[in-house]
Amino acid sequence: MKTQVAIIGGGPSGLLLSQLLYTQGIDSIVLERKTKNYVLGRIRAGVLEQGLVQMMEEAGCADRMKAEGFPHDGTEISYGDEIFRIDFADLTGTPVMVYGQTEVTRDLYEAREKAGGQIEYNVEDVVIHDAKSDTPFVTFTQDGQERRIDCDYIAGCDGFHGVSRKTIPDTVRKEYEKVYPFGWLGVLSETPPVNHELIYANSDRGFALCSMRNENLSRYYIQCPISDDPNHWSDDAFWEELKRRIPSDVATKLVTGPSIEKSIAPLRSFVCEPMQYGRLFLCGDAAHIVPPTGAKGLNTAASDVYYLYHALTDFYKSGTSDGIEGYSAKALARVWKAERFSWWFSSLMHQYPDQTAFDHKMQIAELEFLRSNRSAQKAMAENYVGLPY
Amino acid sequence: MKTQVAIIGGGPSGLLLSQLLYTQGIDSIVLERKTKNYVLGRIRAGVLEQGLVQMMEEAGCADRMKAEGFPHDGTEISYGDEIFRIDFADLTGTPVMVYGQTEVTRDLYEAREKAGGQIEYNVEDVVIHDAKSDTPFVTFTQDGQERRIDCDYIAGCDGFHGVSRKTIPDTVRKEYEKVYPFGWLGVLSETPPVNHELIYANSDRGFALCSMRNENLSRYYIQCPISDDPNHWSDDAFWEELKRRIPSDVATKLVTGPSIEKSIAPLRSFVCEPMQYGRLFLCGDAAHIVPPTGAKGLNTAASDVYYLYHALTDFYKSGTSDGIEGYSAKALARVWKAERFSWWFSSLMHQYPDQTAFDHKMQIAELEFLRSNRSAQKAMAENYVGLPY
Repeated sequence: MKTQVAIIGGGPSGLLLSQLLYTQGIDSIVLERKTKNYVLGRIRAGVLEQGLVQMMEEAGCADRMKAEGFPHDGTEISYGDEIFRIDFADLTGTPVMVYGQTEVTRDLYEAREKAGGQIEYNVEDVVIHDAKSDTPFVTFTQDGQERRIDCDYIAGCDGFHGVSRKTIPDTVRKEYEKVYPFGWLGVLSETPPVNHELIYANSDRGFALCSMRNENLSRYYIQCPISDDPNHWSDDAFWEELKRRIPSDVATKLVTGPSIEKSIAPLRSFVCEPMQYGRLFLCGDAAHIVPPTGAKGLNTAASDVYYLYHALTDFYKSGTSDGIEGYSAKALARVWKAERFSWWFSSLMHQYPDQTAFDHKMQIAELEFLRSNRSAQKAMAENYVGLPY
Repeated sequence: MKTQVAIIGGGPSGLLLSQLLYTQGIDSIVLERKTKNYVLGRIRAGVLEQGLVQMMEEAGCADRMKAEGFPHDGTEISYGDEIFRIDFADLTGTPVMVYGQTEVTRDLYEAREKAGGQIEYNVEDVVIHDAKSDTPFVTFTQDGQERRIDCDYIAGCDGFHGVSRKTIPDTVRKEYEKVYPFGWLGVLSETPPVNHELIYANSDRGFALCSMRNENLSRYYIQCPISDDPNHWSDDAFWEELKRRIPSDVATKLVTGPSIEKSIAPLRSFVCEPMQYGRLFLCGDAAHIVPPTGAKGLNTAASDVYYLYHALTDFYKSGTSDGIEGYSAKALARVWKAERFSWWFSSLMHQYPDQTAFDHKMQIAELEFLRSNRSAQKAMAENYVGLPY
């Protein structure tokens, strides 16, 4: 097989890149290790920055998002029984879009299929060859057969455990990591959300987040020991603990119900430098992970796609390779800012095992400063709705 | 002896309070453990917020400060060879005043003496009695003689090691503390400052600060192990290390010379709650300590003096005790914000013994965000020039 851009990974980054390139007449093939249904079965966050919303529009995939998504003009932050709002609309003029990552992926699959885009499923043993040459290629097995794709460029959109990052030699690659000493226990339930906007809660008992997918599908999280077993958390125990972590007048409004999904996710900050090796470009989780506080995971993947899409378009349309050569530096500059925001917001909102009384007072002082200072609110809101590309 | 307000401690807080009360016709006596010359021999920072400048004006002590002080419209922040400026004037409309704490204290002594204010030096064994009653009094010994002051109120301006805070029973008092795992080695030299504004420097080798007192008196600091002996740091070694921590084009401009003072100061965050016990009020270091990064020590003492001065004036002029009753809560709200800023700025600029490569990247990302984001700059500048009282 032959294509212009081989895309490894059929998650939202790979699909969005493939669809955007298609709008410019640039050919790509997407390789996915699993099946489409497996990919769509993953539950992920669902707060989209305006930049991603605009890319979905440019990709021609925004109709359902516009009809079914929920623009949010702000978010609530609580500490103890105190609560205040960050007004994105007033502070930045920009809302965020609440629309599940699963739905984004579904819309992108549909668009790729409608356009006759090539997606190869169930591929195994992917190997990237000659990334530093002008004639790179990718080999893999599928249904027991050895296959090969010759291409101009390779986009590594295959996540944290994928092969793309590991293709960059250890001598070139530098990795930065922080593992947080707790997890998030998440519950999905067919109940109306307790609030029409998200509530991020700092409590003496640990962090909590009240989120949602739609008017009758709520997503709640509580900070928990990473060693906990979600099966040992009964629904009742979860709801009781959640209620203790949010302001009491919010807790009294909470509608509980059976969980339809319950799981524990770890929290990690991770960045790989560089994000480029010859004709191989890393996008999204392949190069960086953020803790979920502030919902920057998919959005930061999207900013990588933005830079790579424009770099490839410039190359194929006008033969200029500045964008391609500068991809890693440009993508990383924004990645580090998103990493900083996610780390800051995580540090502000969680209880840490080794936290002193002074450290907790610093969290409260920062929350009260944020509550009272418009500049601090604006800096927070600008990060939350997405820094400029 | 009898007075309206007994002030324990003849440093800048106690003197400023005494002088401000005098302008309102309220009588006070200041008790100082040492001599005036001893107090004036202490070397401290010298960046004054506008609020303190205004109080010096109100106290009638601002003439020399206005003539000899240096209003600064901004400050420089560097990391590695990068440097950028925070423009206080543009961001907040407010400058800070560079004028040594020693000079502030000297001006206040002069004003108190000119007004015939009573200051008792060399007092020992100060004890505060009956602070919870309506008839508190203070006893002490002076020249071997037992003495006593009956008063309405007591202001505890006697610093971290003073008797005032310890007068609040352990069962009432709660203390919060963080000790930083490094110190500041400071050098005073009769050389022209390397820059007309301060430079705060984050370097792989540790923090540095280029500060000054006047056109021919520079004050430089470098982060060092707290266990270091200043006598083991030669002047040459100090200058060489300083040069390695600031951008190279700044280092080439550095004029070095013999140190006229060299010492190591520890860095500590500390807050005592409450700041009030009956008729005893704590001001300044007696209740709270900040690390020197951002120069909030004297300024936060000054905000306590502001609240206490207004509370006492309201009481004596119009008999209302709201200010007196609310003193601790009001003072602490601003204290915690200054603590947060000093902790944040210290955390941003120093190298920590247990710091990971990721942690250092977070510092750089925060510095680059600060460099590029006006809201973040504004939040920083608002703190630096002083949050509103």
